[in-house]
Amino acid sequence: MKRIEILTALFLLSTVVTAQQDIFTRRGLSSPEIHEDGTVTFRVQVPKASEIAISGSWMAAEGLAPGVAMMEKENDSVWSFTTDPLKAEMYRYNLFVNGVRTLDPANAHAIRDVANLSNVFIVGDGQADLYRVNKVPHGTVTFRWYPSPTVDKTRRMAIYTPPGYENNQEDYPVLYLHHGIGGDEEAWLGSGRAAQIMDNLIARRLARPMIVVMPNGNVFQEASPGNGSRGFVQPTFMLPNTMDGKFEESFGDIQAFVESNYRTIAKKEGRAIAGLSMGGFHTANISLNYPNTFDYVGLFSSALGVRPMGDSTSEMYKNKDQKLKQQMENGYKLYWMAIGDGDMEMLLKGNASFRKKMDGMGMNYEYLETGGGHTWDNWRSYLSIFTQKIFN
Amino acid sequence: MKRIEILTALFLLSTVVTAQQDIFTRRGLSSPEIHEDGTVTFRVQVPKASEIAISGSWMAAEGLAPGVAMMEKENDSVWSFTTDPLKAEMYRYNLFVNGVRTLDPANAHAIRDVANLSNVFIVGDGQADLYRVNKVPHGTVTFRWYPSPTVDKTRRMAIYTPPGYENNQEDYPVLYLHHGIGGDEEAWLGSGRAAQIMDNLIARRLARPMIVVMPNGNVFQEASPGNGSRGFVQPTFMLPNTMDGKFEESFGDIQAFVESNYRTIAKKEGRAIAGLSMGGFHTANISLNYPNTFDYVGLFSSALGVRPMGDSTSEMYKNKDQKLKQQMENGYKLYWMAIGDGDMEMLLKGNASFRKKMDGMGMNYEYLETGGGHTWDNWRSYLSIFTQKIFN
Repeated sequence: MKRIEILTALFLLSTVVTAQQDIFTRRGLSSPEIHEDGTVTFRVQVPKASEIAISGSWMAAEGLAPGVAMMEKENDSVWSFTTDPLKAEMYRYNLFVNGVRTLDPANAHAIRDVANLSNVFIVGDGQADLYRVNKVPHGTVTFRWYPSPTVDKTRRMAIYTPPGYENNQEDYPVLYLHHGIGGDEEAWLGSGRAAQIMDNLIARRLARPMIVVMPNGNVFQEASPGNGSRGFVQPTFMLPNTMDGKFEESFGDIQAFVESNYRTIAKKEGRAIAGLSMGGFHTANISLNYPNTFDYVGLFSSALGVRPMGDSTSEMYKNKDQKLKQQMENGYKLYWMAIGDGDMEMLLKGNASFRKKMDGMGMNYEYLETGGGHTWDNWRSYLSIFTQKIFN
Repeated sequence: MKRIEILTALFLLSTVVTAQQDIFTRRGLSSPEIHEDGTVTFRVQVPKASEIAISGSWMAAEGLAPGVAMMEKENDSVWSFTTDPLKAEMYRYNLFVNGVRTLDPANAHAIRDVANLSNVFIVGDGQADLYRVNKVPHGTVTFRWYPSPTVDKTRRMAIYTPPGYENNQEDYPVLYLHHGIGGDEEAWLGSGRAAQIMDNLIARRLARPMIVVMPNGNVFQEASPGNGSRGFVQPTFMLPNTMDGKFEESFGDIQAFVESNYRTIAKKEGRAIAGLSMGGFHTANISLNYPNTFDYVGLFSSALGVRPMGDSTSEMYKNKDQKLKQQMENGYKLYWMAIGDGDMEMLLKGNASFRKKMDGMGMNYEYLETGGGHTWDNWRSYLSIFTQKIFN
């Protein structure tokens, strides 16, 4: 066999492929560079005169628009921007070149949230350390298709099974975890860092090993955009059958599949349900309509006080006061609500009204009001708090 | 519970979140738009004067650089570019705004190949239909961690189990499928469309239901960049322990894990191994060093004729001629090689030399020379051909 020096070979291989990938932007820029003091520097190479802006999740929003900062020319072609010290958190950001939203070409790590790809990075320890992949035992993440006869589709869910699940015969409790509007079965794994949060909490013995089931709450879809038979469709907020009761009606298909395909504690004490925003709406309604099914309910920045799709005649949305009373009488171990004080007025009001109703009924719940708004920063935090409170 | 009309609520929700995501670029552009005749139109909104180029995998490369085309101003702020009719294929592309590589803001579908995120789309039927998510039974995709004592790490692999695997007690054959240099355990699922190819071939009864194991061939890594404890590191080609024998030495850990955790046909006739480029190098060496283990070997654009890392003293790379003779004498059902006639001269020569050696020994193999170069277009095609030839 004729042999050529590996260094030459690799050099050629990498030159070709890099050239194919990266013809305009030179390599070697470090971006983001996270400094000891928590400041972060971004750099981008811009061969031609331009206007470069950066928008990141650490910037204060101005009204409905997030903050934006202009990057500055560092030299002939490199532009940069350095933040103030950032608190420990996972952040996302985009660059804008002459107004065109783009990613940082030097950062290959991007997460899709609805239709937007943003770069991500993590700063600091503490809470943020829960979002890192640490040297701890890792659970298994599975994308699995299940039959949903209620909506006449085969659909895709994501499932986290905790470390050890495959190597023993134990039964595990299950958390059903729901995404928000525009999201899908990948949202909690991507922006939500659910697998990392669970790995880390379980390793620290702060949460009980549990199965986390992340369904797709849009029954119009088989799967997240690009993973269903509609092809690489652009993700949108407004899908048919959003919040019309169909997803709640089909929840029984999910539960039946999980309980017949995984070793679960198929009892009320072994089931929790939680969700963010629209997923909180789904959670509240499912826990009402599947009586005596869940001992733990978590509403994260929940879309309470939101009326279902105009013409829905779903049984899911009928006699809700009566169902709530029944839920209270059946009993449960934890009804947990959290919302940021900077969330939308509408949702703050909806949550306040719901709490007032529960107070009036004498229905127990825990309520946590945090800072922040309708953000993944809050939802990651809420997940890490809620999962420490359940199945104990 | 106070209720607000859903339309208002959804409007507010989507306005807020969209505004946070997409402040500079207006929605509503359709890009890419795939026309009946196979032409494709791309559109991007550019608020400020700029130079917009597009580079796509359908363009002929010029030397080491891929083709690039300038987009044209369609009106005040929208730039566009329309291709000639494209043959059925999955394509990737990037935009360049004033020389900064970016993604199409209207296309949320991007796949990372090494350090580069590119948008993707699929045109046409035929071969390209194998790359689509069709309404056929879907296998399960799992990201699973396994112990690799040989390299003293816990490492991550991707595993495809075919439709029905979870619902019967049958044993399945296993294909071990290896990525190229700079790739990782996600490469064959992303750019390679391995799950879609298998779903579609199995549904058409063109391939036997099989388990496909996609390990990470860089033993320096626990997992793909961002999924290991090194954090969101930028992917690179040049990692320590690349092609120094360590991955081949650790292959036994992978095989042992798979055969003890999955229902496999743990016999030579139930094992196949294949890989692209560096993964072809791994495949050739593993099949030499694990004698009588595989009945099927597939080398896709394989890095043959490439010398291992300079100072490697691995047993894996010693006495290779003798091991090859032994492999021939032990027998196997298929030794399959494929390469594009436009691949790198070095690899074409390395493959030719290897075939000459086999010819001289009287060692049987099948050889397919296609058009094209060192590309995912070829590797998707080779995978779909190879998997129809094995386990029959």
